[in-house]
Order: sequence, then structure tokens, then C-alpha cells
Amino acid sequence: MTACLLACGLNPEKAIIFQQSQVSEHTELGWILGCLLSMPRLQHLHQWKVKSQTQKNEGGVGLLTYPVLQCADILLYKSTHVPVGEDQVQHLELTQDTARIFNKKYGEFFPVPRALLGTSKKIKSLRDPTIKMSKSDPKNLATVNITDSPEEIVLKFRKAVTDFTSEVTYDPDHRPGVSNMVAIHSAVTGLNVDEIVRQSVDLDTARYKIVVAEAVIQKLTPVRSEIEKLKADHGYLKNVLTSGTEKAKELSIPIFQEIRSLVGFR
Amino acid sequence: MTACLLACGLNPEKAIIFQQSQVSEHTELGWILGCLLSMPRLQHLHQWKVKSQTQKNEGGVGLLTYPVLQCADILLYKSTHVPVGEDQVQHLELTQDTARIFNKKYGEFFPVPRALLGTSKKIKSLRDPTIKMSKSDPKNLATVNITDSPEEIVLKFRKAVTDFTSEVTYDPDHRPGVSNMVAIHSAVTGLNVDEIVRQSVDLDTARYKIVVAEAVIQKLTPVRSEIEKLKADHGYLKNVLTSGTEKAKELSIPIFQEIRSLVGFR
Repeated sequence: MTACLLACGLNPEKAIIFQQSQVSEHTELGWILGCLLSMPRLQHLHQWKVKSQTQKNEGGVGLLTYPVLQCADILLYKSTHVPVGEDQVQHLELTQDTARIFNKKYGEFFPVPRALLGTSKKIKSLRDPTIKMSKSDPKNLATVNITDSPEEIVLKFRKAVTDFTSEVTYDPDHRPGVSNMVAIHSAVTGLNVDEIVRQSVDLDTARYKIVVAEAVIQKLTPVRSEIEKLKADHGYLKNVLTSGTEKAKELSIPIFQEIRSLVGFR
Repeated sequence: MTACLLACGLNPEKAIIFQQSQVSEHTELGWILGCLLSMPRLQHLHQWKVKSQTQKNEGGVGLLTYPVLQCADILLYKSTHVPVGEDQVQHLELTQDTARIFNKKYGEFFPVPRALLGTSKKIKSLRDPTIKMSKSDPKNLATVNITDSPEEIVLKFRKAVTDFTSEVTYDPDHRPGVSNMVAIHSAVTGLNVDEIVRQSVDLDTARYKIVVAEAVIQKLTPVRSEIEKLKADHGYLKNVLTSGTEKAKELSIPIFQEIRSLVGFR
């Protein structure tokens, strides 16, 4: 189950949340777009290269074609702006190319969507600060989940890999571990990196890790309790998804009808 | 636009004709099945190997994943038997494998469909009797279309590539051209190959080609005039497709609902 989120304008109140699998036009458009793309275009994507190495059988078909489904997720709504992390920039470029290829073949139709890149630094794994923090990391202590308890968060930061220098400095190339602590600290407090380093001049890294853990707990606690409240309210969640699906269909069906007629499905 | 045909039992009156693109469950199931298959499984298929060589960019994604959509076309109806030509046997084997993989992962669900192979000989191109006759052959004279006029059919057979021996014999390995004439003659008349060769003992290949052309014309003329009659009756055709789509959805939607719940789309 993939959840999709559509934002209309910049008002978060207007965001539409729905399950992609409830709107069949996503896979239908995915099929059409796949017919416009070449195999090498997909095989050169970084995530395919990395992930297909670690799967048995040299990677599944779904892994290769997933970025095409992402193109459909975006283009089905004629989206103009897409908030992405750095790791998704390449997939958004694929979407831009796909929009251009479609427009060239069938006439100007899709806006070429633009990336909205966040300003946050990339957050790295707590177990290996040279790779990014990831929900799918199998190492239990590598990743902070939004739903982690305060005890779990403290444990993960206490065990976070740093180095043998006790000072707090920001130097991602030479001191990736402690710099990741500073980056996380900056992300959750909104303070900038220099300010953080200045404030932490009296701390060694062991104590500093606890300071960061506390800041993360403070940031996540209200989010976590809101999640728990919402999870208990099944009726409300069901309603959000049902009305989200309806709104998504309202937006996508007329656009997909036009696409059908452009490509000759009559 | 791909037309699909579903037969219920062996009664041709019960065949359901519809446009695949009108039943979104085909692409939805195609997506799910693609996630169960490995890239090498698809890349080893003969048609991919041959056709991806002739396309620019080493083949499109749609060309690679088309056999997965065929799997969905078959499995979406829990089909038990599939009439195929020899060139599609490999794709049916993929479907059988896919059914087994799905059943192993999610529990016994799909029947493993069996091939119904026709007894007709493979028909070869009229311009190159070493390759199969194909609707997508760019050479105009290579392929007889059901809708060709008698004049076009005579022309195509007159120009058909044979060899420098004037006798009519059946020897596909050494005399592919004239043997293809005999195979076509056999297919349209129902006579067996030996009988045909015996009857043609007084003919040279030039005159024999005209005999075959006449037999093809005799076979295709009623089909062609029926096609013309039907093509003029837009209302009837529209009705066949509309009611076909309805019946296809009636059959596929409950099956796809079960699939959705098996794979966890809720």
C-alpha cells in the first residue's frame, strides 16, 4: 500500500491523502508511460543500480518499473511542483523527460513538473554515518522512527556511531558521525549549524548525543501522540482515505480521459 | 487498442469480445504480477531478444513488460485453457510460472492455464520464407491480410519468393518458399500436404502460386465481405464492445477483489 498526497496550492489544509491502489488510473497511466521509455533510461537510475544488486535474481521487474509508476503518480494530476528529497531528484528528472516525450509525441499536454527541494541537510544512519538514514535499513538502531518511544530514541542516540574525538564540531567529510548529530539537531530545532556548535562548546560527544536525543524527543512527542490519537480513531482515518480517494478520482479521471483519447484508446 | 476474446466453454456463440483498455483491472493486475517476476525471466524470452534488437534504444520498457500484461489478461479471468500459436508458447509458459509463483506466495488461487495448440503449420512470409508471416512486417508484399482484395492477393502470391526449381514439392528445409505455398494451400483448403503435392504434379511453381492465390481468395472472400458488412454497422460493433466490456468486468471484478485482498490492497 502506497499512500499518495496531493497538495492544492500551498495550503496544507487542502492536502488530499489517499491510497494509490484505490485509483486504478495510476497503473493504467504507468503502462502507457512505460511504452514511451527505453530500458537503458531506467537501468541507469541510481536506485535501480544499488537495489538490484542486493536482490536475488538481479532485481524484480517491479523494482525497475517503479519509477515509471512514480511518473504516473505525478503526471496523472498534471502536477506542477513536487516536493522531493535529494535521493528522488533523479526520479523527478525521469518524470520531466517522460512529460516531454509524451508532449512531443501527442502534443503539448503535461506541464513539466518542477522539484521543490527541502533545505534540510541529508540525515545519515546512526550506525553508519556515510549512508543515508532509511526506513528500510535492517539495522534496528540505525533509524529513528517517528513513533519511537523516548526510551528508544535515547538508546539509539547513545549508541550512535561517532569517533574518538570528544569535541562537537561540524565537519561532514572528516567527522561524519558527530556532524550527523549536529545536522539532526539543526533539523529538529531550526537552529543553524554554527549556532549549535557554539552552544555545545562545553559538551563532549557522549553528553551532546543526549542533548540531541532530548531535542528529537521534544520535536517528535507531539507528532507521536497525534499519530496515536489518530490510529485509535479508525472511523476518522477511513473517512480521510475514502474522501481522499473520491477527490483524487475527481481530479484524475477527466485528465486520464483526455490521455486515453490522445493515445488512441477509444 | 488490443482486443481481448474470452470463450466460455467451447461454444463460440459465447465468446466475449471487448477492448482490454476498457477494463483497468488488466493493467492493475499486470503491475502486481510484475512485482513477482525477475528481469532475467523476461529478458530470456525469444520475442524480446529478437524485437529489442530491431528497436532503437535497445527496446522499450513496454516491449519487455508486454508478456506480463498478457499474463494478467489470462489470469484475471482464472482462465484454464488458452489457444496459442507456436510463437506464443513461451509466453504462456511465463503465465504458468507466474500463476505458480503467485500461488506459492499467497496460497492456491490461480489455475495453471494450459495451452491449446492449433494443428496448422506455421505460415511464413511471402518475401522471406525463413521468417514467419507477421502483421507487423514492414514489407508490403510479405503478408496476406484478411481484408486484401482478390487483386492484391493474386499480386502478392505472384511475387512470392520461391526458388529456381519449377516442380511443386513439400520440403520446408530445402525448399522453404514453395513449401510455404503448400502449407498455405493446406491451411485454407483443409487438404493434407501429400494430397496437394499429388494434385499439383502438372503445375510449375508460377502457375501453382496462382492456384494457391485462388484458394486463399475463396477462403477469405466470405470473411472479407462479413468484415465489410460489420464495419459499416457501427451501432452493432459498438454494442458488441460495450456489452463485451460489461461481461468482462462482471467476470474480472470479483476475481480482482480477491487478488487485492490477498496481496494486501485494502
